[in-house]
Amino acid sequence: MDGKFMRNQRVSAITKILIENPNKVINLNVFTNMLNAAKSTISEDIVIVRESLKRLEMGTIETISGAAGGVKFVCDISKEECEKFLEDLCKELQNQNRVILGNFLYLTDILSSPRYLKKAGTILASKFISNEIDYVVTVETKGIPLAYEVANKLGVELIIVRRGNKITEGTTISINYLSGSSNRIQTMSLSKKSLPSGSKCIFIDDFMKAGGTASGIKHLLQEFQSELLGIGVLIDDRSVENKLMEDYIALVEYDAPKDNKSAIVRISEKLDS
Amino acid sequence: MDGKFMRNQRVSAITKILIENPNKVINLNVFTNMLNAAKSTISEDIVIVRESLKRLEMGTIETISGAAGGVKFVCDISKEECEKFLEDLCKELQNQNRVILGNFLYLTDILSSPRYLKKAGTILASKFISNEIDYVVTVETKGIPLAYEVANKLGVELIIVRRGNKITEGTTISINYLSGSSNRIQTMSLSKKSLPSGSKCIFIDDFMKAGGTASGIKHLLQEFQSELLGIGVLIDDRSVENKLMEDYIALVEYDAPKDNKSAIVRISEKLDS
Repeated sequence: MDGKFMRNQRVSAITKILIENPNKVINLNVFTNMLNAAKSTISEDIVIVRESLKRLEMGTIETISGAAGGVKFVCDISKEECEKFLEDLCKELQNQNRVILGNFLYLTDILSSPRYLKKAGTILASKFISNEIDYVVTVETKGIPLAYEVANKLGVELIIVRRGNKITEGTTISINYLSGSSNRIQTMSLSKKSLPSGSKCIFIDDFMKAGGTASGIKHLLQEFQSELLGIGVLIDDRSVENKLMEDYIALVEYDAPKDNKSAIVRISEKLDS
Repeated sequence: MDGKFMRNQRVSAITKILIENPNKVINLNVFTNMLNAAKSTISEDIVIVRESLKRLEMGTIETISGAAGGVKFVCDISKEECEKFLEDLCKELQNQNRVILGNFLYLTDILSSPRYLKKAGTILASKFISNEIDYVVTVETKGIPLAYEVANKLGVELIIVRRGNKITEGTTISINYLSGSSNRIQTMSLSKKSLPSGSKCIFIDDFMKAGGTASGIKHLLQEFQSELLGIGVLIDDRSVENKLMEDYIALVEYDAPKDNKSAIVRISEKLDS
């Protein structure tokens, strides 16, 4: 790249690269090469980015020293913005039009919506960011976009556990588990190639009912000599008592709709658990 | 927010907000309120962001005039970076360890990896960004993370078509279609609530074999009085001739592995079609 960049321009470029690679350590050489500037200059630029984000409560820039060192962006959301988002989400979920025959809540649109999931993912990721996570795990289908957002914000890879066996996955390990709410036996499977032994994982899903799926994931991870360090869900169904898992984080909780009346939704008591 | 921000700090904050909301129009009032600055000042800040991104070929900032106007970030990737990424992807796909029994290629890790999908999503989105798309459509399961990335970069919502019928989707419209490669009849369904009639859609999937799924999506969208404006896939299987769909964009193409030898993978001829 010919010629110099002004400080303003460098600050913009550095911000973009950091924001697009959350929780990934970026070596300062990336910036010095791209922006044709000295390391000391780039370090000063980074101080500006750090102070701006900190003041606006939009996340932090951490410095990692050593040969493999550099800087990384750690996502965060201000308490105010978090509360506003969750209140809006509750309001949206209480919409009478969302109740469908059989007293189910229609969530399909929200569960694949970047507009909702970028913030939901940031909130969930911020709860697990201090743990040293290797992988985010989810089970197909509905929770995949949310889990993908959380993995992205944590700077790790996503692993999707399949229901049943797929021919394109190679050798798989399958377990049978009891779905806590419907009392049916179900199968989940994961390719042996997917997960190295000794991995530290969190499980992200759309919904927590009795916790049968989460409990199944815990056992599946044991088969891979790996560990389940935490569970995060978007919605916690409080109408199911005696859950199989007690230790999890949820963004909102609800009492399932009855007699085709709206669901009652509020910010979860397990948001900061 | 008390006190003023320096220009550098404003530039950083504005960059962050724009990058995190690709193809979404942000009204300048958002920035004037957040940064406690006059509109003219913010406009000058935006010029700096625009020039920096343009010079580094990292996307453009467009101005939309009128009452609902503002600025938006339109993603892009330089030709150099695009080619380097696709060459790396080809190399990775040709890894002998990816060939699994039955001459399938193991892709599961790549298809859920933010590291690969952020760039793949940017490339695909840049091909469709000049069309006025309302929705990105995909079919469960493997293509979901890629389709989610493309939807995010295009600033639209994602619609996930299900295989079979699900009880939590309410009233659905289902179609039967012939899977082009296996010659089996399959079912796909979509909730009536999901898609307003008259929508303009693109279909994003991981893999193009004979095009049976894409053709099914086209018919399903017709049932919703909606239109399929384009198709984008990560990998095009060139060993299948006489495809049902000819008009699509692919990032890479391959000849399926034979006799457990590596796949042969190259940048797709349909990258710019």
